[in-house]
Amino acid sequence: MNTERSNGKALAAVFKGHGLPLELLEFPVPKPGPGEILVDISCGTICGSDVHTWHGRRNEPTPCVLGHEIVGRIVSFGKGAPRTDLRGEALREGDRVTWTLAASCGECFFCRKGLPQKCEHLFKYGHTAIAPGREFSGGFAECCILTAGTGVLRLPDELADTLAAPANCAVATVAAAFRLAGLVEDSVVVVIGCGVLGLNACSMAAAAGASQVIGCDLFPAREVAAKGFGATLFATPSGVRDLAREVTNGRGADFVFEFSGANQAVATAISTLRTGGTAVIAGTTMPDTPVALDPNDLVRRMLTLKGLHNYAPSDLVTAVDFLAAQGKRFAYESFAGGNFRLEDINEAFAKASDSAGLRVAVCP
Amino acid sequence: MNTERSNGKALAAVFKGHGLPLELLEFPVPKPGPGEILVDISCGTICGSDVHTWHGRRNEPTPCVLGHEIVGRIVSFGKGAPRTDLRGEALREGDRVTWTLAASCGECFFCRKGLPQKCEHLFKYGHTAIAPGREFSGGFAECCILTAGTGVLRLPDELADTLAAPANCAVATVAAAFRLAGLVEDSVVVVIGCGVLGLNACSMAAAAGASQVIGCDLFPAREVAAKGFGATLFATPSGVRDLAREVTNGRGADFVFEFSGANQAVATAISTLRTGGTAVIAGTTMPDTPVALDPNDLVRRMLTLKGLHNYAPSDLVTAVDFLAAQGKRFAYESFAGGNFRLEDINEAFAKASDSAGLRVAVCP
Repeated sequence: MNTERSNGKALAAVFKGHGLPLELLEFPVPKPGPGEILVDISCGTICGSDVHTWHGRRNEPTPCVLGHEIVGRIVSFGKGAPRTDLRGEALREGDRVTWTLAASCGECFFCRKGLPQKCEHLFKYGHTAIAPGREFSGGFAECCILTAGTGVLRLPDELADTLAAPANCAVATVAAAFRLAGLVEDSVVVVIGCGVLGLNACSMAAAAGASQVIGCDLFPAREVAAKGFGATLFATPSGVRDLAREVTNGRGADFVFEFSGANQAVATAISTLRTGGTAVIAGTTMPDTPVALDPNDLVRRMLTLKGLHNYAPSDLVTAVDFLAAQGKRFAYESFAGGNFRLEDINEAFAKASDSAGLRVAVCP
Repeated sequence: MNTERSNGKALAAVFKGHGLPLELLEFPVPKPGPGEILVDISCGTICGSDVHTWHGRRNEPTPCVLGHEIVGRIVSFGKGAPRTDLRGEALREGDRVTWTLAASCGECFFCRKGLPQKCEHLFKYGHTAIAPGREFSGGFAECCILTAGTGVLRLPDELADTLAAPANCAVATVAAAFRLAGLVEDSVVVVIGCGVLGLNACSMAAAAGASQVIGCDLFPAREVAAKGFGATLFATPSGVRDLAREVTNGRGADFVFEFSGANQAVATAISTLRTGGTAVIAGTTMPDTPVALDPNDLVRRMLTLKGLHNYAPSDLVTAVDFLAAQGKRFAYESFAGGNFRLEDINEAFAKASDSAGLRVAVCP
């Protein structure tokens, strides 16, 4: 589409609440304010969290324009808007970019502590109620206003829109998990949950030189997908501890990444680790029953557990670099869940609901 | 004492089992074997774990010479024994030294991973059954054989025996905890459990420039001790979360160190942390009921939990340097629980049993 439309208006798919169809509404194309950038959206992919919201399993303020996995081209810059991207490279009108799923102030306690995703003034794309003149804040629309504090990243030409869009959610979160874990080279890595996040973790572990990458999922059929993304071995949760021991002389895994979101997977992660091992727990983002933690085991086996939620801007750079360099080595094309026009947004959400593990794209 | 005794024998206090008095027995002074060093013991302090063993709350192989917090002077070197200490400085006969509470092989998986305390061939002083010719393996004796793989450290003259001996257990373990935690400068640090370990943690946090050091203990009377060791504030477990929030604009503590050994203290540690905070859990070394861990909280608040057991040789260097530089600044003299002769070892253990939080010294 083209935000220079004759009537000066653009379309956005508005979510008004669970059970209601997304409504395509027309709003005036905004002028970017101070520090802001106006982007023409070329592709937004439907994340699992969007589907959860659509089904009423997650509460978002409404009315809202969903979508935070977005690629577009820069239309114009507001006064004082950043003219360089996260790499420090020049940004110009027409540049194809993606951006962090949240904007941070850069000055609060958490921003200064290296946790911009916990910024006290956080703005999240696709998670904010729209208001007059502030409608274009999500991915399922013809354009988007990037607010001040957003990390913008110019995309390499070889990276397709539909692959680049999820970089700013699933892939960047996995990049953050590996940053927290530290060096996984020559290590035995277990990935619990072989959905989009877990498959990304398998491929990142393989690319980082892990000696074994053990995919783990409740569904044995996920073995094929896991192996397409670099897993060398596969187990269901009931067998993963023994498999990890089998390939480590009885010690257990050096690293476990938990992306399944099942609470009990945290207990599996802990029991699968070797003495001195590290688990990054990133799957659970909904309240559930707690798991039992044995402090004596934590102490004597010197385990490290790290919780992770979202990511920092540098992780988006890692994610895009990874996809550009390694994307063709793994089965990333198998993520493709089809492309829909913005006019067909409700069909796109229906398809995404039936296609866990795929990324359905909406391309205005 | 002097291992060059006329009869070529030396005394050791032998523990034969719970409920039995420690027996002072005479054994031939051994010649150090390949890689070994013979040391004349000048001081051994009674650790809480020795008291637990004596009371039957911990099982050790018997008969055994207890004690791992030891200072002595080098008598002689076996063939190929190390002639430099942990700092790389020369070791000579007559040097006053302490040493790591365990000897590691340096070559197994865990040694190569930086976890010498989990060495697959670990030898722990004061925790090994004696055998003919291998009696001098603990601290409550006139001499000790340092086995190959022990980290030996020459002591600065200004550090008294009774202060230096515990360096190789409590203080080095606390040094390891701070190494795991990372930089605590300008941070709000909570220390749960104000026994010997916790008080050391208070003083290390204060010396490292923490903006607040909150001591926490079940017993309100420990406030005095905590403040003598650098705590700026004090709370009981029921109030520590609120106190940490009060001094952090509602955020919670940057770091929590758990040294109480109470399982529920782990839950307190977690709830006291701020988003992005780190807890080092080192107190619990006995099986107990598990605590409830909420994965959603771990993830969304991006908490880090690290279990710690014992320490690596570099931590002993940190511990001794800390005591030499900062010992006089804090109330370390208040740890002194009295000096006993080896002949009075049973009285020393009785005193140690009644003096939690003090270090009773046995000086042959």
